[in-house]
Amino acid sequence: MAKTEKNVQPWRVMLSQIIFGSTTPAGKAFDVLLIVSIIVSVIVEMLDSVKSISAVYGDMLRAFEWGFTIIFTIEYILRIISVRYPWLYIKSFFGIVDVISVLPTYLALILPGTQYFLVLRLLRVLRIFRVLKLVKYLGEANFLITALIASRRKITVFLYAVMTIVIIIGSFMYVIEGEEHGFSSIPHSIYWAIVTLTTVGYGDISPQTPLGRAVASVVMILGYAIIAVPTGIVTVELSKAKEDSQSKRVCPQCKSNDHIERALYCKYCGTKLPVMV
Amino acid sequence: MAKTEKNVQPWRVMLSQIIFGSTTPAGKAFDVLLIVSIIVSVIVEMLDSVKSISAVYGDMLRAFEWGFTIIFTIEYILRIISVRYPWLYIKSFFGIVDVISVLPTYLALILPGTQYFLVLRLLRVLRIFRVLKLVKYLGEANFLITALIASRRKITVFLYAVMTIVIIIGSFMYVIEGEEHGFSSIPHSIYWAIVTLTTVGYGDISPQTPLGRAVASVVMILGYAIIAVPTGIVTVELSKAKEDSQSKRVCPQCKSNDHIERALYCKYCGTKLPVMV
Amino acid sequence: MAKTEKNVQPWRVMLSQIIFGSTTPAGKAFDVLLIVSIIVSVIVEMLDSVKSISAVYGDMLRAFEWGFTIIFTIEYILRIISVRYPWLYIKSFFGIVDVISVLPTYLALILPGTQYFLVLRLLRVLRIFRVLKLVKYLGEANFLITALIASRRKITVFLYAVMTIVIIIGSFMYVIEGEEHGFSSIPHSIYWAIVTLTTVGYGDISPQTPLGRAVASVVMILGYAIIAVPTGIVTVELSKAKEDSQSKRVCPQCKSNDHIERALYCKYCGTKLPVMV
Amino acid sequence: MAKTEKNVQPWRVMLSQIIFGSTTPAGKAFDVLLIVSIIVSVIVEMLDSVKSISAVYGDMLRAFEWGFTIIFTIEYILRIISVRYPWLYIKSFFGIVDVISVLPTYLALILPGTQYFLVLRLLRVLRIFRVLKLVKYLGEANFLITALIASRRKITVFLYAVMTIVIIIGSFMYVIEGEEHGFSSIPHSIYWAIVTLTTVGYGDISPQTPLGRAVASVVMILGYAIIAVPTGIVTVELSKAKEDSQSKRVCPQCKSNDHIERALYCKYCGTKLPVMV
Repeated sequence: MAKTEKNVQPWRVMLSQIIFGSTTPAGKAFDVLLIVSIIVSVIVEMLDSVKSISAVYGDMLRAFEWGFTIIFTIEYILRIISVRYPWLYIKSFFGIVDVISVLPTYLALILPGTQYFLVLRLLRVLRIFRVLKLVKYLGEANFLITALIASRRKITVFLYAVMTIVIIIGSFMYVIEGEEHGFSSIPHSIYWAIVTLTTVGYGDISPQTPLGRAVASVVMILGYAIIAVPTGIVTVELSKAKEDSQSKRVCPQCKSNDHIERALYCKYCGTKLPVMV
Repeated sequence: MAKTEKNVQPWRVMLSQIIFGSTTPAGKAFDVLLIVSIIVSVIVEMLDSVKSISAVYGDMLRAFEWGFTIIFTIEYILRIISVRYPWLYIKSFFGIVDVISVLPTYLALILPGTQYFLVLRLLRVLRIFRVLKLVKYLGEANFLITALIASRRKITVFLYAVMTIVIIIGSFMYVIEGEEHGFSSIPHSIYWAIVTLTTVGYGDISPQTPLGRAVASVVMILGYAIIAVPTGIVTVELSKAKEDSQSKRVCPQCKSNDHIERALYCKYCGTKLPVMV
Repeated sequence: MAKTEKNVQPWRVMLSQIIFGSTTPAGKAFDVLLIVSIIVSVIVEMLDSVKSISAVYGDMLRAFEWGFTIIFTIEYILRIISVRYPWLYIKSFFGIVDVISVLPTYLALILPGTQYFLVLRLLRVLRIFRVLKLVKYLGEANFLITALIASRRKITVFLYAVMTIVIIIGSFMYVIEGEEHGFSSIPHSIYWAIVTLTTVGYGDISPQTPLGRAVASVVMILGYAIIAVPTGIVTVELSKAKEDSQSKRVCPQCKSNDHIERALYCKYCGTKLPVMV
Repeated sequence: MAKTEKNVQPWRVMLSQIIFGSTTPAGKAFDVLLIVSIIVSVIVEMLDSVKSISAVYGDMLRAFEWGFTIIFTIEYILRIISVRYPWLYIKSFFGIVDVISVLPTYLALILPGTQYFLVLRLLRVLRIFRVLKLVKYLGEANFLITALIASRRKITVFLYAVMTIVIIIGSFMYVIEGEEHGFSSIPHSIYWAIVTLTTVGYGDISPQTPLGRAVASVVMILGYAIIAVPTGIVTVELSKAKEDSQSKRVCPQCKSNDHIERALYCKYCGTKLPVMV
């Protein structure tokens, strides 16, 4: 490690340690400052969208927004300069997020017309992805992510089943209830079926005919019961992930390390395992 | 296998491999094409139900619908021709689904009158069952289905209990709230009880009297708490299904049977485990 | 058994076997007939509450109601006559349910005035408790009930915590939102808090002020997260109940029968356990 | 214990036993009386907020409130007097709760003006914290609290992920739906996203555009599926807490440690287990 870094200028190494590292005091301070800046800039963005606040403090909020955009742009440039393989960083998930979090403000300048107003806001909203950077500061998330990845395929099957149910029931309800009760098209009825199956229940559309209500009752009870499926899947995987993280006994012979507490002999080479303290 | 197939014409064997099989390149291509066709035809059906789209592209969408119906009809005939025991296929679940997915379009021709319009649409909606054919492409579903079948009886008991609660509470609320607050009949009140117990909560009917609200509060907390029951049932069965799929090996010495697939020696007595087939 | 029954008349023994038993063909037929009668009478009751149906078939439905009431009354009397200890039956849960399921119709005769109309309906609704009799036909329910009884105390603590949260938040929301936004009193605000925490969300009352919405958001996320608690409790108890029902190996020495599959020696007396097939 | 208490006056020891202890008959009676008083005073507070009740019984309810406040104040003073280290009690959680539960009534005297009416009510509402004192009477809660503390960090990661999702989706919906459909600002849209993700679904704001409904559908299915995560976390921790409370015994021969309390011999090697204390 020390040998390969001789090729790099010392200031780049130091900059890299501050920006990318979080072990030195300067690196830690930088990280904390960055998180605070991100949160404040998101709050500024939110307040700017509130009419009554924007009318009074609009100019100040926009100044803040530009301030943060410039700071984050400089930070992005420093990251590219300091990192050893800039291209790897640029193409990485956080490299892309970093660009997306500053671009909208600049794009709003290039496209000034009122007609692009909505698009401009959509782009500005993307700045909020900046928040995603916080994720890397949380190591505990790995445990959850492992369990979710392990249950990925089962969750897909479950979502496919939910989709099929929702499309079929949505189509039926379109025929049963019809446009006069708010089920104006099949996609709209499918939306209703999702609202009902997930037990959200806005009530903006609700069945009016006895048959429609009977079908809705079945959908609700179904939705109420099948929530057990993803819950069961994730619980089983989390349980397994926990067990795996606990069994750390190492075989003195073959170095295998997935032995449960009760095991007396290595299951790979038959060597007697050391007694646990 | 090769011997018995001597009786069948070679082209039928080949056709069968393409249509029913998914191991040959041609069979795979056919399956992918079929899935894409099914999804597109369902989307066509959905778009046709949207007034604004139907007004402009109605003719085109109906042409598509006819195109898909004819293609699926030819496919159905080919399946009957190519399969060795046509009657077994026709009576099978997917044989029935295949017919149901083409019939509605033809039935709409035979019954033209306006008065059957609603019925006609109900029949057309059945075409969506075509989507169900996708299920067979997902092997991972077996695991979930096994767990659900194992918990079938307990889920039935749970659903029976839910039904009883809902009927009793629905009847009480009919008396407590009465027609002036929207609880116009016992079936309607039972519908409200289902909406509340499953935590859907449309809000199209909601209690207005203090006593009605007190009963509703009890129903809500009950619904919130008893969701634990199906969840617990499915979790336990999924957990068991996972364990069963993992531990099938028995130690010849100590008869312990919780050995993972990779294990070579018994972890309890150190005896070499028999090699897995 | 046979000896003690010599004291009873043979027809009482036979009647008892038909009414209470479900092992003889006659007993089974009686049970099935009873269940069908109960379900039909409940449906009659429901239909009678629907204005449009009651207007046309009212007389017929009331005749049915009286028919069922008389049949169930005769059944109740037969039960008292045939059973060996009538008082034990009358005081038992199902003895009380049996009386409650016939009384309302008779009470409606004694109290005829229009002013008691509502009370009369409340009494009639009680007939629906008849349905509860179905429970005894489901043996599988024991498993679930055992797990629920085992988790009884933890569920109580959970419900107590939910109650406390709901009362405190309801009171806060009463002050924050006030009567002008529908939070007209503390009990009413508590009702809203229950609607929100249990994720029912009718929408008949919803916060209007920014602070109220912030508190509501916290309540919703809380409700969304703490549902994990009853679910976890019941899952753990169900898992234990399942394990207990599986481990049926009996020690040849001390006859203890709660040995897990992996066990080699009896944990109570140290005797070697027989090898499992 | 007896030795150190010689320094204290006997009446203080006795008072302390009655107020803080719950082992002597007098201590038990005091505790029961206190719980009843707390519950009654909370009910009085609730009734006082109901307009129709307050108009008739207002004076009586306010007299009751003062009565309870004075009783609880005397109780608080007695606690300080009788306890050995008053300062420790005053700074403890329940010491603070005890003060908060009497202060609001007095503060309402010092600040009489109509303009402080709302603040006054907010202070009064705090009296409800008195209920929290009940918690200490429930020992079973420890089990649940242990499991929740163990899952604390994972729950935090989960809540952080939920927050990020809700902020991003809220911002997107603000742009997609806009003010004309009720999404009047980003904070308001985030409120909608929370209402939807937690499956509460008030329906006071609901998407009107096709794109908005598509995004809402994704949020609903996401909310429906990810509830599995906290449930899984808590279930695994509860399961572990249960196991830990059961298996504390280690076999001196084979070091296996999953022996239940009743076990006398190791189920793996037959060695006699040490007697439990």
